[in-house]
Amino acid sequence: MGGLQRPMPRLSHYDDRGRARMVDVSAKPRTARQATASVLVRMKARTRRAAESNPKGDPLEIARIAGIAAAKRTAELIPLCHPLPLTNVDVQADFCREGVAITSTVRAAGPTGVEMEALTSAAVAALTVYDMLKALDRGIEITDLRLLEKSGGKSGTYRAPHSRAGRS
Amino acid sequence: MGGLQRPMPRLSHYDDRGRARMVDVSAKPRTARQATASVLVRMKARTRRAAESNPKGDPLEIARIAGIAAAKRTAELIPLCHPLPLTNVDVQADFCREGVAITSTVRAAGPTGVEMEALTSAAVAALTVYDMLKALDRGIEITDLRLLEKSGGKSGTYRAPHSRAGRS
Amino acid sequence: MGGLQRPMPRLSHYDDRGRARMVDVSAKPRTARQATASVLVRMKARTRRAAESNPKGDPLEIARIAGIAAAKRTAELIPLCHPLPLTNVDVQADFCREGVAITSTVRAAGPTGVEMEALTSAAVAALTVYDMLKALDRGIEITDLRLLEKSGGKSGTYRAPHSRAGRS
Amino acid sequence: MGGLQRPMPRLSHYDDRGRARMVDVSAKPRTARQATASVLVRMKARTRRAAESNPKGDPLEIARIAGIAAAKRTAELIPLCHPLPLTNVDVQADFCREGVAITSTVRAAGPTGVEMEALTSAAVAALTVYDMLKALDRGIEITDLRLLEKSGGKSGTYRAPHSRAGRS
Amino acid sequence: MGGLQRPMPRLSHYDDRGRARMVDVSAKPRTARQATASVLVRMKARTRRAAESNPKGDPLEIARIAGIAAAKRTAELIPLCHPLPLTNVDVQADFCREGVAITSTVRAAGPTGVEMEALTSAAVAALTVYDMLKALDRGIEITDLRLLEKSGGKSGTYRAPHSRAGRS
Amino acid sequence: MGGLQRPMPRLSHYDDRGRARMVDVSAKPRTARQATASVLVRMKARTRRAAESNPKGDPLEIARIAGIAAAKRTAELIPLCHPLPLTNVDVQADFCREGVAITSTVRAAGPTGVEMEALTSAAVAALTVYDMLKALDRGIEITDLRLLEKSGGKSGTYRAPHSRAGRS
Repeated sequence: MGGLQRPMPRLSHYDDRGRARMVDVSAKPRTARQATASVLVRMKARTRRAAESNPKGDPLEIARIAGIAAAKRTAELIPLCHPLPLTNVDVQADFCREGVAITSTVRAAGPTGVEMEALTSAAVAALTVYDMLKALDRGIEITDLRLLEKSGGKSGTYRAPHSRAGRS
Repeated sequence: MGGLQRPMPRLSHYDDRGRARMVDVSAKPRTARQATASVLVRMKARTRRAAESNPKGDPLEIARIAGIAAAKRTAELIPLCHPLPLTNVDVQADFCREGVAITSTVRAAGPTGVEMEALTSAAVAALTVYDMLKALDRGIEITDLRLLEKSGGKSGTYRAPHSRAGRS
Repeated sequence: MGGLQRPMPRLSHYDDRGRARMVDVSAKPRTARQATASVLVRMKARTRRAAESNPKGDPLEIARIAGIAAAKRTAELIPLCHPLPLTNVDVQADFCREGVAITSTVRAAGPTGVEMEALTSAAVAALTVYDMLKALDRGIEITDLRLLEKSGGKSGTYRAPHSRAGRS
Repeated sequence: MGGLQRPMPRLSHYDDRGRARMVDVSAKPRTARQATASVLVRMKARTRRAAESNPKGDPLEIARIAGIAAAKRTAELIPLCHPLPLTNVDVQADFCREGVAITSTVRAAGPTGVEMEALTSAAVAALTVYDMLKALDRGIEITDLRLLEKSGGKSGTYRAPHSRAGRS
Repeated sequence: MGGLQRPMPRLSHYDDRGRARMVDVSAKPRTARQATASVLVRMKARTRRAAESNPKGDPLEIARIAGIAAAKRTAELIPLCHPLPLTNVDVQADFCREGVAITSTVRAAGPTGVEMEALTSAAVAALTVYDMLKALDRGIEITDLRLLEKSGGKSGTYRAPHSRAGRS
Repeated sequence: MGGLQRPMPRLSHYDDRGRARMVDVSAKPRTARQATASVLVRMKARTRRAAESNPKGDPLEIARIAGIAAAKRTAELIPLCHPLPLTNVDVQADFCREGVAITSTVRAAGPTGVEMEALTSAAVAALTVYDMLKALDRGIEITDLRLLEKSGGKSGTYRAPHSRAGRS
């Protein structure tokens, strides 16, 4: 915990007077950006089986569509987020041992990254799964929403140290 | 796991042909509805301290506002969710040992519950915390998003069996 | 063409000065409203077969979800339309001889009807079908968008004289 | 109908597992794009005359504004559509023998086309005409919504084989 | 300045900890609400004449439509505002000696007032006038945006002491 | 008033038939754009003191967040405005002698200016101040909303002749 010795990092979302601000990306070049986020919708085995055995429709398809649509609306939901013309949103949702595993990958060419778009997309896909299954089990949990990796931009590539996705 | 013996529960969000549908609440009376959801934004102690020591602004205030605004847009994000004229949204966000603990309570008078509004509100507040702190630590996790309780409507009151809120 | 003899009907969406206005429904009681609209997405048989034979996904499912979501946003799209808390949106989309036949039924309890919600929902579902199939055939047409029936309110029940839906 | 002999065309909106996806346009260059769509709002002559003789306001002006606004929101309505910063939307609405003829032309510089924006814009303009005249005639039909032409991008220029616009 | 002697009024939008909150209107009855706001778009006489002499279109018609549409989106723009199903929005925009005078009257049946809807509607109508005339004169000012009157609810009727509307 | 002698300026937002249109910016290059708008929320000294002395929260912080969010939605509110991917929105709100002084600066790289974004952002921030203080005083006025300066694009830099901001 030697962190206290290092100088306290500064919050880029705050100005000198300590007020929240959007980060100014006017001077940054447009480069290819990509980010992937994952989330787990944890549910009882019984609930998962009911969802899996739905005779014809695929309950995860609606979650995927909702996740794609949400990525496009990230800047409306997250106050200090920049609007970006996304070039791709790819949401995967699959049944796994613990419930439903979701990943969302977002791409854009822009002056700032798309981490928030990937996280928002995954979150809304997970909320949609909850919505469709809540009549079966209100105790479903949405958990481990995290950034798996991002690339592009000056700060370069980030990769999460130990991905839960690998466990399921 | 004797659950298999019981008849498989039916997904109310699917029609007889197995296709996704909105639940028809036309015949349900308008009654007072309330739901509370909670979520944890888990971060390193160092990150939390940087956020807490921000000289003047309160980084959690923006998260709370984003959570309130998101509750009002739930029906735009969750495809099969009903639009409801909300009468209150109360988002609390507090630093805790593990990072930031958020709860959102939503109220409305309507023919259906407000669980999705509470969960969406908490999720977007948590995403906003992530957005504001991500320059410090991209490994922040949003976890344990769950319904704490709901009341109103025919299905009555639900209370989560063991609330994480109690632990923090 | 004896219509000219009858007094010219008045446009309720215009005031005495000839300016567009929202119809004031403040004094109207909240009653149960329902409306059904239909539309045909006409395409070449070859295009329809390609869509039908898509190995796993159901291309019409996304159209249905888009139609449900659009119903909820009608008042944002149609300037003089009243916002209404909808209680149900049911979109059906099926392959037919000429392409894809879509119907949307919308219900609400409110002081005005939901015809625009049903028509908007059907239109957006049809546009979504076009979007998904346009790479195969840009000549797909969206046609015969019409109100099949409405009920509720002072003006009572309307039923379209000869429904195209019956023909397909 | 020798179409069956040719290999079945592939739906670009579906991945290898048959699941709906956004088309990834990340690698495509930004080029000038244009698309024009048309639609007919078919009504009784009596209804058209009532609309035309409205003393001062122009009932088609509101339809045009609604069509322009809708073009900008296409990516919110059509789930797999990319958001694009449009550079022009031009909606024309004119009384014709059969009712009201609408065309919408949309332009943008982007990695993908603006067909959906033109079609959505024309559709919402037509729905707005319906909304304003529905008190006169609920049997008004919106018909022949189609792409007249598009240009720009790798697939080049498309022109509809025989334009209904030419007929009216 | 004897105001200091009176107890400091409490901000209803803040809770006991001094944090912003939505006012809880869950227990309030739904009653008829109405509010009227006005605003002046002040411009040079030369600019006003150019706008007035526009050969065919009425530049104020678009401002009116924008004002009506904005009223319906007030709760999306004003963070702590409650969503309400409006029953009427009536925007008037007229040339006056100083430029363009706008009033907006909004009505709803709900548990809280519609002042913010009237003010937001008038503001957006004024901004739209600015947008349409800004190429002529970037010095146009939007001024005197205020509540003229409100009625309904427990706090009863409010009427502005000396209305600018009376002066123009 | 020799203005009458000069040829009447033409409204760029109108076509040859006098109909409203979006200005076509397809051929314009993307350049760095910036605009700053200011507005005054005028209130009684007593109201300002109550707002200033709010024990913990800063009532102006929510106004600032609302102003940032509104800038991003300008093209949804102003019908003929082009959507632009903004790179920065900076809203300042400070108590002044007359009440609250707000300025908003918006930046983007695009084919057209961001004046409307700056004005809309300032207006919504001011409306949010009104919303939070209206229980204290319904007579609060929003006044002197104007463009302070803009830069970028072919028309070059504009600076308001005598800025009210300088007075407060």
